[in-house]
Amino acid sequence: VHAQASAPAGAASAPHVRTTADIVDGAPASAWRRPDPNDVLAMTLPAGVVWIELAPRFAPRHAANIRTLVAQHYFDGLAVLRVQDNFVAQWGDPAANGDDASRLRPLGAAAAGLQPEFAISDRGLKITRLKDRDVWAPVTGFVDGFPVAADPRTHRAWIAHCYGTVGAGRGNTVDSGNGAELYAVIGQSPRGLDLNITPVARVLQGMELLSSLPRGGGAMGFHDKPEQDVPITRIERLADMPEATRPDIRVFRTDTPQWDELVESRRNRRDAWYVHKAGAIDLCNITVPVRIAVKPAAN
Amino acid sequence: VHAQASAPAGAASAPHVRTTADIVDGAPASAWRRPDPNDVLAMTLPAGVVWIELAPRFAPRHAANIRTLVAQHYFDGLAVLRVQDNFVAQWGDPAANGDDASRLRPLGAAAAGLQPEFAISDRGLKITRLKDRDVWAPVTGFVDGFPVAADPRTHRAWIAHCYGTVGAGRGNTVDSGNGAELYAVIGQSPRGLDLNITPVARVLQGMELLSSLPRGGGAMGFHDKPEQDVPITRIERLADMPEATRPDIRVFRTDTPQWDELVESRRNRRDAWYVHKAGAIDLCNITVPVRIAVKPAAN
Repeated sequence: VHAQASAPAGAASAPHVRTTADIVDGAPASAWRRPDPNDVLAMTLPAGVVWIELAPRFAPRHAANIRTLVAQHYFDGLAVLRVQDNFVAQWGDPAANGDDASRLRPLGAAAAGLQPEFAISDRGLKITRLKDRDVWAPVTGFVDGFPVAADPRTHRAWIAHCYGTVGAGRGNTVDSGNGAELYAVIGQSPRGLDLNITPVARVLQGMELLSSLPRGGGAMGFHDKPEQDVPITRIERLADMPEATRPDIRVFRTDTPQWDELVESRRNRRDAWYVHKAGAIDLCNITVPVRIAVKPAAN
Repeated sequence: VHAQASAPAGAASAPHVRTTADIVDGAPASAWRRPDPNDVLAMTLPAGVVWIELAPRFAPRHAANIRTLVAQHYFDGLAVLRVQDNFVAQWGDPAANGDDASRLRPLGAAAAGLQPEFAISDRGLKITRLKDRDVWAPVTGFVDGFPVAADPRTHRAWIAHCYGTVGAGRGNTVDSGNGAELYAVIGQSPRGLDLNITPVARVLQGMELLSSLPRGGGAMGFHDKPEQDVPITRIERLADMPEATRPDIRVFRTDTPQWDELVESRRNRRDAWYVHKAGAIDLCNITVPVRIAVKPAAN
């Protein structure tokens, strides 16, 4: 039995059917938003910059604590210290995994522990819903570019652990996270983490700098030799960069007709190569387009 | 609203509840199978060996053609020529993407094109079914360690595009694939490829050697400079290795009570760290355990 025998052919090459690229390229300026520069972080690694957008709507305490840490230059000189294949890349203070607490970098004005922010109330939350099934939650969709799941029965909504979701590591107690150790999902969406840990952000651009790092040799992908650690040159806030040279960042809105058309173009691919229309899409298969224009430094 | 307020605590640390590691470590020899050495390929890259198991049940024509290519040492000296972030790593003849057909390595006794094997009949196919929802298909489960989706209405079953699934690249016509150019999924499961292309195998071990490769700089992650290509030292069949030094390979069976218990341990994680039981698992979140014991070469 071959798929092409029953595949709907023809429509794929009809000229009025736009591919995802057509939709993004043809979208008006109003289909894009500029994220708040207070919420955008640039993490500079030896290989380039990972751009991250915080989610204060979902994790206000963690977002505030991370901003405090960044303002103190807490992360500058720390490292990516864990890369577990098909799971996460994690960064923070390498001394946190050692026995000598005196070597820990001080948190300064930041809190050492925070009440968890695993979910928020769904009341009043405008989710651009997907009509597709989901394995894990009754409702899925997008809020401000973040992939979100929700359960109307418990009135909870949360950022889903998709590729590129950034969360705050924690220990065995739920209030032991503080945003000083962060991870990004680099593989198949580990949605089993949802409601167990606080998602705080998502990577806007530069995921490949994390996902292509060598995997750690220790348990759970932690680096078992200090020389495996990938140094973080610095993490700085977009708002703290000089306005004249601040990159122009645009994120595709997820509450517009263009967004709806983009989602539909992922659900039923319009490229002629596809002979079978899936008629479905997974929350974590949808990438929100981002454009970052770096301005040349003035000399 | 915090998750831990309604999370079922306590059971997680009950001593009779076994974690996934407990289940695998405690499984009897009968819970493991030895794959047919005719179906196991060792792809040697500069950084190590990627172990691959062919799926002749799902793609008999492609599996036979790949065996013919391997017997001719077709792949030896070719390269990984495409690495697209959150999608696939692809290997084959770098000349296939150039303009000079005279530089192509000859296929020898292998066919240049094959009828597609996007799906097989589900009649008589024993699928260890998951009870969980799936975004894409009415039925999901495992057959001989392969993640499988099926549709009882059309009586089709197919290997799902999960992390580690290997498929045969094709051009715009469905019969243009032949197994000489292969890809492995390195990111979020691109299930939209299901029923559009022929899955032929899955990676048993060594995925991190593909998933951590630098991403290609060209369109769709193709390498845009020849020096980006990662050379394939060789691909050889387990059956062609000397028996005395042939590695002992065991793959966890997916049709046993131990398997059922393993799946349940992924659905509701038993580690004390988890405060929320998901009560669900995605087909592509379940890893089939593999043990490969390399024997020292005789001197």
